[in-house]
Amino acid sequence: MELSRRDFAARMLGGAAALSLAGRADAEGDPGSDPLPSWNAGPAKDAIVGFVHTTTDAASASFVPVAERIATFDQDGTLWVEHPIYTQLVYCFDRLPALVKAKPELAKVEPFRTVLTGNREAIASLGLEPLIKVVAATLTGMDVDTFRDEVKKWIAEARDPRWKRPYTELVYEPQIELLKYLRSVGYRTYIVTGGGQDFVRVYAERVYGIPPEQVVGSAGGVSYQYAADGKPVLVKEPKLLLNDDNAGKPEGIHLMIGRRPHFAFGNSTGDRQMLEYTKAGGGARLAMLLLHDDGAREYAYGPAQGLPDTKVGTFTQALYDEAKKDGWTVVSMKNDWKRIFAFE
Amino acid sequence: MELSRRDFAARMLGGAAALSLAGRADAEGDPGSDPLPSWNAGPAKDAIVGFVHTTTDAASASFVPVAERIATFDQDGTLWVEHPIYTQLVYCFDRLPALVKAKPELAKVEPFRTVLTGNREAIASLGLEPLIKVVAATLTGMDVDTFRDEVKKWIAEARDPRWKRPYTELVYEPQIELLKYLRSVGYRTYIVTGGGQDFVRVYAERVYGIPPEQVVGSAGGVSYQYAADGKPVLVKEPKLLLNDDNAGKPEGIHLMIGRRPHFAFGNSTGDRQMLEYTKAGGGARLAMLLLHDDGAREYAYGPAQGLPDTKVGTFTQALYDEAKKDGWTVVSMKNDWKRIFAFE
Repeated sequence: MELSRRDFAARMLGGAAALSLAGRADAEGDPGSDPLPSWNAGPAKDAIVGFVHTTTDAASASFVPVAERIATFDQDGTLWVEHPIYTQLVYCFDRLPALVKAKPELAKVEPFRTVLTGNREAIASLGLEPLIKVVAATLTGMDVDTFRDEVKKWIAEARDPRWKRPYTELVYEPQIELLKYLRSVGYRTYIVTGGGQDFVRVYAERVYGIPPEQVVGSAGGVSYQYAADGKPVLVKEPKLLLNDDNAGKPEGIHLMIGRRPHFAFGNSTGDRQMLEYTKAGGGARLAMLLLHDDGAREYAYGPAQGLPDTKVGTFTQALYDEAKKDGWTVVSMKNDWKRIFAFE
Repeated sequence: MELSRRDFAARMLGGAAALSLAGRADAEGDPGSDPLPSWNAGPAKDAIVGFVHTTTDAASASFVPVAERIATFDQDGTLWVEHPIYTQLVYCFDRLPALVKAKPELAKVEPFRTVLTGNREAIASLGLEPLIKVVAATLTGMDVDTFRDEVKKWIAEARDPRWKRPYTELVYEPQIELLKYLRSVGYRTYIVTGGGQDFVRVYAERVYGIPPEQVVGSAGGVSYQYAADGKPVLVKEPKLLLNDDNAGKPEGIHLMIGRRPHFAFGNSTGDRQMLEYTKAGGGARLAMLLLHDDGAREYAYGPAQGLPDTKVGTFTQALYDEAKKDGWTVVSMKNDWKRIFAFE
C-alpha cells in the first residue's frame, strides 16, 4: 500500500519531451516510401517491419484480424523525454503558487513551504512521500473541465530548461513515425502510462494522434456533483482507481481495452508486466524496450549495461536479461535512431 | 456503502433478451432506404433522424466532428430484456452447482444452500445482500480467459423460460437498427451498463456489433499473477473498481471514454445521471428513455405513468417528469416500436 502510494506520486508526473506537431496526425505516411526514415537499418527496424508484414498479410499464418490489432505504448521515456523529472511533476510544482493564492494557509505547512522555495536540493531531500500531498492538491479538487483548461494553458507556455522548448516538442520523432506506421496498417495505438490519464489526454491527440479514449493511465476517481447553477460536473477526487504501472499496466489494459495487445513498447521496469502479458499471447507478438544510452543527444540511464543508475525510468539489468531471454527487442537510442527530435 | 454493494449485487446480473444476429454487425444499413424500419413514425423516430441530420450535416450550426460522435446505450432493459430478472444473475445461479462441485463445503452454508434448492420464493426471501456472496463466488476467483470461456458456453446453451430462446435473441430489433444507423453516420456506439463489464464483453461484438473496448460496465479488479507454468494470468478479484450505475455512469464514461456523449439512451433511474450529463453538454444532444409499457409483447413496469412498480429497471414518475421538463425523449415500447424482436 505504501509502495503503491509512492508509485502513484512518482508517476502522476510526466516526462519532458518536444516537437511541434501541428497537423502531424493528419498525414499517416506514404506507403510507397520508407515509413520509418528516422530509424537506422538494423535488427530493431527489421523486427518492426517483419512484425507488421507477418500480422497484416492475409496469407500469413500469424495474420491478425483488424479488430484485434492493438498496440500499446508507455509514454514517459518511451514517447517523450522523462529526465531529469516527469513533466507532470513539473506541472504540479508550477501549479502550486496559484493553489496557495487560493488557499494561503498551505504556504505555512510542509511540504508546500519547501516546494514553494523552488530550492531543488531541499525539495529532493523531502523524499517522495510528502510530495504526494503536492500531487494530490494540484491534480484534484477541481472539475475535469477546469483541470483540462489549466493543463492546456500550462503545456502551451511551459518550457523544458535544457532545450528551451515546449515539453510537447520533446517527443521522439522515430516513435511518431512508428505510431503512424502501425496505424497505417490498421493497428489502433494506445498510450498505457503510469502518468495521469486526464493529464495525458489533454495533448495526446494533437501530439501523438491518439484520442482520449485510447489513453490508459493512472486514474483518480471523479465524483458526479451539481454546480451552483445546477449543471452536473465531474470533480476530481484524491482517490486512486488505477495505478497504471508495473502489474497495473496489464490490469489497466484489461479494464480499459479488454483485449491483449499484439505489440507493446516500453522503456523501464514499470513496463515489464505489460511486455510479458503481450508476449504470452498466441501468434506473432512484438515487445520492445527503449534503452536510453545517448547522453549526448538525450540522456543516458539504466542501470542496465553499465549505464548510470536512476530513480526516474529505471531499466535494470534483470529487465535487460529478461528481454534477451524472452525475445523482446531492445532499441538503442544511440544506435537505432538516426534522429531523436523533429527540431534537430 | 451498503447501498452501493446492493446496487452491485443487483447489477452484476443481466437482462433476458433475444435475436439471432449472425452477420448482423457486417451490413450497417442501406442509406437509401428507411434506416429504422422497426420504428413507427412519430416524435421519437423524428427526434433520432433530426438529431442525426443536425449533427452530421457540415453546414449545420450543431455539426459534430466525427471524433466527437459518441453514443452511449444502457444494456439491461434498453438493448435487451431485463425482466423478470437480470440475465447475469441467472448466470450466477446456474454456475453455482459447478462451483459447489469444486468446493462442496459451500453447499452447507447460506445463502448457497437456499439458492441451490432452486426454490424461487425462498431465494427471493433472502433479500439482495446475501446474494452478493453468490455473485462474488461465481464471478471472481478465476482468470479472465476461463471466465470468458464459461460465459460463452453458458450464453450459447441457456434459454429464457418465456420465449424458450437464447438470451442473446431477446435483444430489441429497433435498437439494433438504431445502433447501425448511428454507426453508419460516424457515431461510435458504446454500451454503458450497470452489468459486469467482462460478462457483457463476451457477446457484445457478436450481438450488438460493439467491440470489447467500447463496453463500459461495472468492473471488478483483476490481479496480475503467474500460473503454475509461469505464464502471466489476470485473476478476477472480489473488489469493485467501478459501480457503473447512477452517478457511476458519467464517472465511468469519463474514466473509459474521456469524452461527453452527444447521444445517450437508457430506461431506468440508473440512467438518469448519464442522460443529465449528456444533455448538459453544448450543441445538439439527444437523451432518450425507453418506457416498458407493453405487457403483451414484452413487459410493463414503471412505476411511471401508473405502470406496475418493479425493483428491476425502475422508471419512476420523477424520472418521467425530469425527462419531460428537460427535453429528453421518452420512447413508448407499445406505440413507437412496430416490432420488438427479430424473431417475431
